[in-house]
Amino acid sequence: MFQSLNNPKEAPRSILALDFGGTKLAAAIVHFGEREWRSHKRMLSPADADAKADLANMRSLIHDLLQGEKPAAIGISFGGPVDAKLGKVRLSHHVPGWGNIPLREILEAEFQVPVSVDNDANVAALGEHRFGAGIGYESLFYITVSTGVGGGWILNGHPWRGAGGMAGEIGHVVVDPNGPICLCGKRGCVERLASGPYMAAAAREELHKQPLRGEILRSLANNNEDAITGQLISQAATQGDELALEILQRAGWALGVGIGNAANLINPQLFVLGGGVTKAGAQFWEVVRRVARETALPEVNFDIVPAALGDEAPLWGAVALAQEELN
Amino acid sequence: MFQSLNNPKEAPRSILALDFGGTKLAAAIVHFGEREWRSHKRMLSPADADAKADLANMRSLIHDLLQGEKPAAIGISFGGPVDAKLGKVRLSHHVPGWGNIPLREILEAEFQVPVSVDNDANVAALGEHRFGAGIGYESLFYITVSTGVGGGWILNGHPWRGAGGMAGEIGHVVVDPNGPICLCGKRGCVERLASGPYMAAAAREELHKQPLRGEILRSLANNNEDAITGQLISQAATQGDELALEILQRAGWALGVGIGNAANLINPQLFVLGGGVTKAGAQFWEVVRRVARETALPEVNFDIVPAALGDEAPLWGAVALAQEELN
Repeated sequence: MFQSLNNPKEAPRSILALDFGGTKLAAAIVHFGEREWRSHKRMLSPADADAKADLANMRSLIHDLLQGEKPAAIGISFGGPVDAKLGKVRLSHHVPGWGNIPLREILEAEFQVPVSVDNDANVAALGEHRFGAGIGYESLFYITVSTGVGGGWILNGHPWRGAGGMAGEIGHVVVDPNGPICLCGKRGCVERLASGPYMAAAAREELHKQPLRGEILRSLANNNEDAITGQLISQAATQGDELALEILQRAGWALGVGIGNAANLINPQLFVLGGGVTKAGAQFWEVVRRVARETALPEVNFDIVPAALGDEAPLWGAVALAQEELN
Repeated sequence: MFQSLNNPKEAPRSILALDFGGTKLAAAIVHFGEREWRSHKRMLSPADADAKADLANMRSLIHDLLQGEKPAAIGISFGGPVDAKLGKVRLSHHVPGWGNIPLREILEAEFQVPVSVDNDANVAALGEHRFGAGIGYESLFYITVSTGVGGGWILNGHPWRGAGGMAGEIGHVVVDPNGPICLCGKRGCVERLASGPYMAAAAREELHKQPLRGEILRSLANNNEDAITGQLISQAATQGDELALEILQRAGWALGVGIGNAANLINPQLFVLGGGVTKAGAQFWEVVRRVARETALPEVNFDIVPAALGDEAPLWGAVALAQEELN
C-alpha cells in the first residue's frame, strides 16, 4: 500500500517507534535488524496537555529525529484502550481529548507510511516476545503491575487481542469475591489488591488502624501518609517492616491467583511480569510464584520471569508491532 | 502420508468418528460434507473394562460399520487427558490401563489412514464450532458441566490447546479462595461448586444441617440421600425447592465468575455451555449470565449459549478433528 522513498542501497530501512505514555512522550528510530537506537528523544507531557498538545509535541520529537528522512513504517504504543484493528485510540485515562482519535489515519496521511498502533500492554508483550524475556517462546502472557494492572497475550507467536480487542484484562479478574470494592465496581479484582495506588491506600488505612505498627514505613514516608507509594511499601518491606510486608504479600497473593487461573485457562509457556510493583524484591516474587504454582493444576507448567526491557518495552514493542505489520 | 484406497469416483470419501466416553463407546461414519451419519453404532463399556477391552470392543464396532471399506481419516474423542500432538492418551479417570497409550499409532498401523485424537472437551469445542452453536464464530470457549467441569478453546477458528495441551481447565479456576476444598487440593474451584456430584454432596450436607428444608428434594429422592444427583437438584429447584435452588444458584454463580474472568482474560466472542448441569433450566442460566456479565468489564462483550450437539458432540467433534487434520 505504501512505498518507501528510501533507496535501500543508499540508506538502511528504518522503523520509527512512538510511545504516548500518558505522562511522557518518546520517539526513537532503529534500523532493520538492529538492537540499538539510531536516535532517541523523550519529553514529559505538560500537566495540562490534551490530545492536540500531545500530538503537536510528538510531531516535533519526530521531526527532530527524522530530519526529513522517511521511515519504512511507524509503530505506536498508546497508554490507554486502543482499537488496534481500526488504528483508533478509544480513550486516555490520563490525557483529555483522546476519545475516538484515528491515530493511524492521522499519521499515515502525514507520513505516507504504514502505521500500527496498540495499547501499551499488548505492545510491551510483543516487545518482550521479540526482544526481551520472551524470545524463543511461542506463547506468553505479559503482565504490567504499576498504577494499574494490565496484560497482553502472545499465542502462536502473535498477539492475541480478543474479539473486541479487550483480551488481557487480568487486572479485573476477580480473585476474592469478598474482598474490597474496586473502582470497576466489583470486589477483590487483582488490580484492587496489587496495584501501587491501591497498595498505598491499604497501607494508609492499616497505619490508622494499627498505630503501633509500620514504624519503618512511617519513617520512610517522614510521617506524611500522602508520601506513601507502592515503591515505598516495597522498600519498607525489604527493610523488615511487617505491616508493609503483609500488604505486599497480599498483592503477591492476588497476582499469583490471577496467574494460576490464567495458566489453567490458557496454559501459556511463560508469564513475563513488568511494572514498578514487580521490582518489589524477592519476598514479593516468592509469594507470586508459590501462589501461582498452588493455583494451577500440577500438570500445568509455566515459568514466571521479570520483564527484560524495562521502560523501553513500549518503544521496542512498537518496533515489533511495525515489523509484524510489514511481514 | 497416507493414501486412500477409495476411488473417489466410485465411493464418496468418508470419515470415521470414534468416541471413547469412559462408560460408553460409539463409532459413526459420515460422508464428506454431509450432516447425517451414514451409519452409527454404540455400546456401553462393561463395568470391568480396561483399555484392552475398550480397544477390542471399539474394533468390533468399527468393523461392523466399515464392512471392509476404508475411510479417508479417523477422528477420536477420548474422555480423559490426551497429548493431541503425539496422539497419545495420557490417562483415563474411569477405565484402567489407558496410561500412556499411543492410540493414534495403534490405529494408524491398523487402518493405514491418518488418525487424530484429542480429549472430549477440546473435541466437543471443535464440534460445536463446525457443526453446532458456534458456527460462524472465530473465537469461543466451550464448557462442559457434568460429572466434572472442563473446557476447550477455539481461537482464530482453530483449537487452542495450550503449550502442554492443558488449556481449558476452567473447572480448576479458583473463584472463592475461602470456599470448600476441591479434590485437587485447592479451595473454591469452579468444579467444586458447580459439578453434579459436588452439588449432590452439598445438598446432602445441607439436608442434614437443615432438617426442615428441602422437602421437594427429599421427596423426589424418596428420602434416600444416595439418590440425590445434580439432575434431581435441578428438578427440585424447578418445582420450587428453595434449598435446591440455593445450591443451583451457587453453582451458577461459580460458573458465572469463571466465565466472566475468562472473558476478561481472553475476550472470546462466545461461550458455549454443554453437559447435564446446564440443562438445569432458566433459573440456573439467569444466574450464570448475570454473574458472568457482572464479572466481566463493561467493554468486554460475549454471548453465552447452550451447546447444540448434545450427546453427539464428541462424534461430530471427532469428524471436525479429522477434517482439521486433512486440510
